[in-house]
Amino acid sequence: MNTFGKIFKISIFGESHGESVGIVIDGCPAGISLKHSDFKEDFSRRKSGAKGTTPRREADVPQIMSGVFKECTTGAPIMVLFENTNTRSGDYTILKDIPRPGHADFTANQKFGGYQDFRGGGHFSGRLTLALVAAGVLAKKIIDPVRVSGTILEVGGSKDIKAAIDRAVEQQDSIGGIIECRISEVPVALGEPFFDSVESVLSHMVFSIPAIKGIEFGSGFQSANMTGSQHNDNIVAVDGTTETNHAGGINGGITNGNEIVFRVAVKPTSSTSRTQRTMNLKSGEMKELTIEGRHDTCIALRVPVVVEAAAAIVMADFMLQSQQINRISEPKPQ
Amino acid sequence: MNTFGKIFKISIFGESHGESVGIVIDGCPAGISLKHSDFKEDFSRRKSGAKGTTPRREADVPQIMSGVFKECTTGAPIMVLFENTNTRSGDYTILKDIPRPGHADFTANQKFGGYQDFRGGGHFSGRLTLALVAAGVLAKKIIDPVRVSGTILEVGGSKDIKAAIDRAVEQQDSIGGIIECRISEVPVALGEPFFDSVESVLSHMVFSIPAIKGIEFGSGFQSANMTGSQHNDNIVAVDGTTETNHAGGINGGITNGNEIVFRVAVKPTSSTSRTQRTMNLKSGEMKELTIEGRHDTCIALRVPVVVEAAAAIVMADFMLQSQQINRISEPKPQ
Amino acid sequence: MNTFGKIFKISIFGESHGESVGIVIDGCPAGISLKHSDFKEDFSRRKSGAKGTTPRREADVPQIMSGVFKECTTGAPIMVLFENTNTRSGDYTILKDIPRPGHADFTANQKFGGYQDFRGGGHFSGRLTLALVAAGVLAKKIIDPVRVSGTILEVGGSKDIKAAIDRAVEQQDSIGGIIECRISEVPVALGEPFFDSVESVLSHMVFSIPAIKGIEFGSGFQSANMTGSQHNDNIVAVDGTTETNHAGGINGGITNGNEIVFRVAVKPTSSTSRTQRTMNLKSGEMKELTIEGRHDTCIALRVPVVVEAAAAIVMADFMLQSQQINRISEPKPQ
Amino acid sequence: MNTFGKIFKISIFGESHGESVGIVIDGCPAGISLKHSDFKEDFSRRKSGAKGTTPRREADVPQIMSGVFKECTTGAPIMVLFENTNTRSGDYTILKDIPRPGHADFTANQKFGGYQDFRGGGHFSGRLTLALVAAGVLAKKIIDPVRVSGTILEVGGSKDIKAAIDRAVEQQDSIGGIIECRISEVPVALGEPFFDSVESVLSHMVFSIPAIKGIEFGSGFQSANMTGSQHNDNIVAVDGTTETNHAGGINGGITNGNEIVFRVAVKPTSSTSRTQRTMNLKSGEMKELTIEGRHDTCIALRVPVVVEAAAAIVMADFMLQSQQINRISEPKPQ
Repeated sequence: MNTFGKIFKISIFGESHGESVGIVIDGCPAGISLKHSDFKEDFSRRKSGAKGTTPRREADVPQIMSGVFKECTTGAPIMVLFENTNTRSGDYTILKDIPRPGHADFTANQKFGGYQDFRGGGHFSGRLTLALVAAGVLAKKIIDPVRVSGTILEVGGSKDIKAAIDRAVEQQDSIGGIIECRISEVPVALGEPFFDSVESVLSHMVFSIPAIKGIEFGSGFQSANMTGSQHNDNIVAVDGTTETNHAGGINGGITNGNEIVFRVAVKPTSSTSRTQRTMNLKSGEMKELTIEGRHDTCIALRVPVVVEAAAAIVMADFMLQSQQINRISEPKPQ
Repeated sequence: MNTFGKIFKISIFGESHGESVGIVIDGCPAGISLKHSDFKEDFSRRKSGAKGTTPRREADVPQIMSGVFKECTTGAPIMVLFENTNTRSGDYTILKDIPRPGHADFTANQKFGGYQDFRGGGHFSGRLTLALVAAGVLAKKIIDPVRVSGTILEVGGSKDIKAAIDRAVEQQDSIGGIIECRISEVPVALGEPFFDSVESVLSHMVFSIPAIKGIEFGSGFQSANMTGSQHNDNIVAVDGTTETNHAGGINGGITNGNEIVFRVAVKPTSSTSRTQRTMNLKSGEMKELTIEGRHDTCIALRVPVVVEAAAAIVMADFMLQSQQINRISEPKPQ
Repeated sequence: MNTFGKIFKISIFGESHGESVGIVIDGCPAGISLKHSDFKEDFSRRKSGAKGTTPRREADVPQIMSGVFKECTTGAPIMVLFENTNTRSGDYTILKDIPRPGHADFTANQKFGGYQDFRGGGHFSGRLTLALVAAGVLAKKIIDPVRVSGTILEVGGSKDIKAAIDRAVEQQDSIGGIIECRISEVPVALGEPFFDSVESVLSHMVFSIPAIKGIEFGSGFQSANMTGSQHNDNIVAVDGTTETNHAGGINGGITNGNEIVFRVAVKPTSSTSRTQRTMNLKSGEMKELTIEGRHDTCIALRVPVVVEAAAAIVMADFMLQSQQINRISEPKPQ
Repeated sequence: MNTFGKIFKISIFGESHGESVGIVIDGCPAGISLKHSDFKEDFSRRKSGAKGTTPRREADVPQIMSGVFKECTTGAPIMVLFENTNTRSGDYTILKDIPRPGHADFTANQKFGGYQDFRGGGHFSGRLTLALVAAGVLAKKIIDPVRVSGTILEVGGSKDIKAAIDRAVEQQDSIGGIIECRISEVPVALGEPFFDSVESVLSHMVFSIPAIKGIEFGSGFQSANMTGSQHNDNIVAVDGTTETNHAGGINGGITNGNEIVFRVAVKPTSSTSRTQRTMNLKSGEMKELTIEGRHDTCIALRVPVVVEAAAAIVMADFMLQSQQINRISEPKPQ
């Protein structure tokens, strides 16, 4: 469903071209300072507009509708709302019976019996990641001094990001990418032995981000080619510091105090200006389809800050569960 | 924690060298036939004994302690118990202060303050996957005619499985592998748009299996190198059948009716006969360590049936949530 | 926390004198018609203004911010927002260090370390029941033809409601009351044997309504004085119809198809114009306190529709879990 | 379902006349001492055999099958198993088509389509409370110095317990009772403002105990007859101590540090030796029914320790959530 977390619990809602998107954040400790300006940096990193991203520009103005009083969290649920303003629904109406390849048009239609809001991806839209980033801003404050950092490793199979984007724009096609996320200053002993291993919960959250199709921790898929004596990380200090970090900071599902390292694969945006073939579900005839509208050449460019938010949200929940964070930051001075 | 699922809910318990391992399965529909012999085939696939697997042999006798009456499930929780018989704890006691590289020894000690059962990996042991496979046997019956199939693609970087095992045994080292799982006859519209995407829930469950360090769906990491027009799967029939299956059967987190395809990376077993370096946590001195005991050269050989169980459990839960399965198979004839 | 339900899942947020109160409703089937006018009747029943209720009047205008498209639910989360307009915070600021007897002032201050929004009860305010009633309006549509009906049995120990209110207003004191809720056309076999008995889940939800201090099902506390042969309800039809209904429609935690009947005790409003004694937490001195502001003489008058909403929400979740309702009402005609 | 709790999470299983009953306890802190003898006192209080209770005697021998090592909890799930030995199923088989009034026979049959284990109440049996009491024993250790105490206030409407039992035995009928539970040394600020109020969670758990039909906190139903100035508890110390305790230790759903007080109504045992009327569901004919077998005249006599267990389990979960208890009692001395 649309709720995630045990103690730090978030509930997401909204549609790309409906009234709004937003998020309710429950279980946040009281006494965390939160101002509108706190969102600015991460929202700006997620924003479109650079080459390779959609020209649709939303104002992305967060409205804090509950749970904050005198610029501090109160311990009650925090609702952050984003009203949609820049919507051009006309672009999408013709796609109703003709599902776009690679999109959720067909599956949404099957799941919701034709009642889904089909405009701009509706509830499946990448616009909902704005709400996730908002929750991430708060999570990052909670987990401090733990730090989360997401970067692009490559796009379209190339480490020269700019050249790859230029080529794709020229070819009027979209491309994917690989993002790495590192979490540092991690407390030892987060996570649970079996179903709530750190890998389990991080991957659960990360795969909720649209377009992600793979995740690996530490050496990941490469570890399948290694021997045990190569892969094992020798412990070289009593605090658990290891010589290498093939495990990505996690043993037996539990953090070992080293950096958590994971990489995710972002598929190419399904929307491409190239002509594609799909079926008209009403007539049963094959159909050539050219998507106009506004879309990203390489959505991966905008994903690092979203992955960071996902990771910070998971860490906040683990740290609250493990009592590494107090539910109240400190009693309010009178 | 040690509980997973929304409607088909499992709770796992036990230790490698304690009294038992086992599982409670709640939310199973009434009227599913279940006999002891049903477990035989999958248990045999998970069993050790072949070249490349540990010589420790457990009888793996399932005791159905509740929830089954006259060889049918009753709708009440089913508890399946495995008493441990073949344990040699002496092998492990010296490892208490000297954590083995790559194992959960260090993290378990930090998490549980020295109270953990350290014998043979304790609650972190791969032996708990026996309980998971037991739940998988039941899940496979529930989801029928949906079928789940796990196979080894490669071990130690090689598709010639036998040769790679021979080489590793000779080198007294352990090796990893890659496993592919395919789920066929999948109903359309399973999964949820955001946090409970099919990828999210499958990966959550799969990463609870010890030694798994990566997962990818459809084209997975390769999709990062593709263009949108290459990656998009053209829809070629009104039931959603696609020409290609780069999406691995999932769009927008929802099943599209095509085969679900995912691959997982299994790291090499941490136990290897090779000498390794670690720290004596008591004295703070570096220590050379040679692990004797009994262990697997290539644990990946035993993992396919465990991944199948994981996948079947997730499918059972999704199908019950989506009302694709009745809570009662059919009223009992009088 | 502030989330309730397994499939029909609600998340509540907001404060009495903050920006807004509202609710996110997840798991609602697609294809339920929902218009602003649908809320009118239940909101009006909850509204204050009659004798015995507070003169504070809010406009109670629901804004549907997501999950509804062309006046039908889409299957995505529905967010209903109420902006606060008629707030007079000045009334409350002096109470910060001097907790009102019977209120959550002291406990909130302890729980949230002084960061809570103390204006008008903040997140603990009865104003949040407006959001619950909104979810109830939707739940009632989902469970149709099941019907929920709440009525006042007595206030201040008297069945003559009007006289009791007049007396209390005259005495400038507040009074409590007893409310009965009946659920009819209930499907057989809702609920679960142990922890999720129908009584368990209904009482869980009902005790979230402020001021409720007791609940009983069927004969309830009176059953403790009965013999088994008096209390047992003889079954007189193959559909489970019973001669009497001492069990209140529930056996072994499961609905038996008869009317569900329960009663709740509503304590007198803690705010009363009478002078009370409390402690100044800062100075440690006892203090005489007279609460001015606007408040209800008998909050119980406004509770029946809130109890109905609570019951309807629980029934919707049970019916969805038991597959008595389809997740899609019916495929949309094209 | 059969799982309860957020951090201290229990999963119950078993049937009255099947192989076993038992419980899995997850989320228990490591380092709590646990021996077989710890269960003795509470098991003895729950045991039948006194006048007014069933002559069926089970050995009630707890087998700790996981999660305990060297007589201390390890942090892994603890499974406690009770094998059934003294079962006489023959007593019950004739009742299959003829549901006993007041029992779960009819509802279980409807819910599970005839597949339920109908022997002795099966999964609905009061025997499962043995597993709950086992979890309570552990919970009481965790919450120490918080203390939980359950006592019988009256049976059959009379405070003279012995006389009421004698009369009921003579009349060959069963009677109910009222039980009070007091929780002392309660930390301030447990519980959550809305859906997880202390009353909500306690009542949820308590209504899972068979035969309970009502619960009230503090003045409970009597509070409906009081005025606000009578009911409000004046705060008379800076730690929140109140002059009276009409609120039962809870304001706004949160503990205020005073004793938590609640009472529950236990209905008369449905099994009575008196002849009753029910329907033969197969033939549709009314049927006179006399229940032989072994049963309790007044099950309420055995319920206080079960209510204590329920309350202790809830307190353990709240205290772990609120970080009033460490997840590790103290690091193990080496």
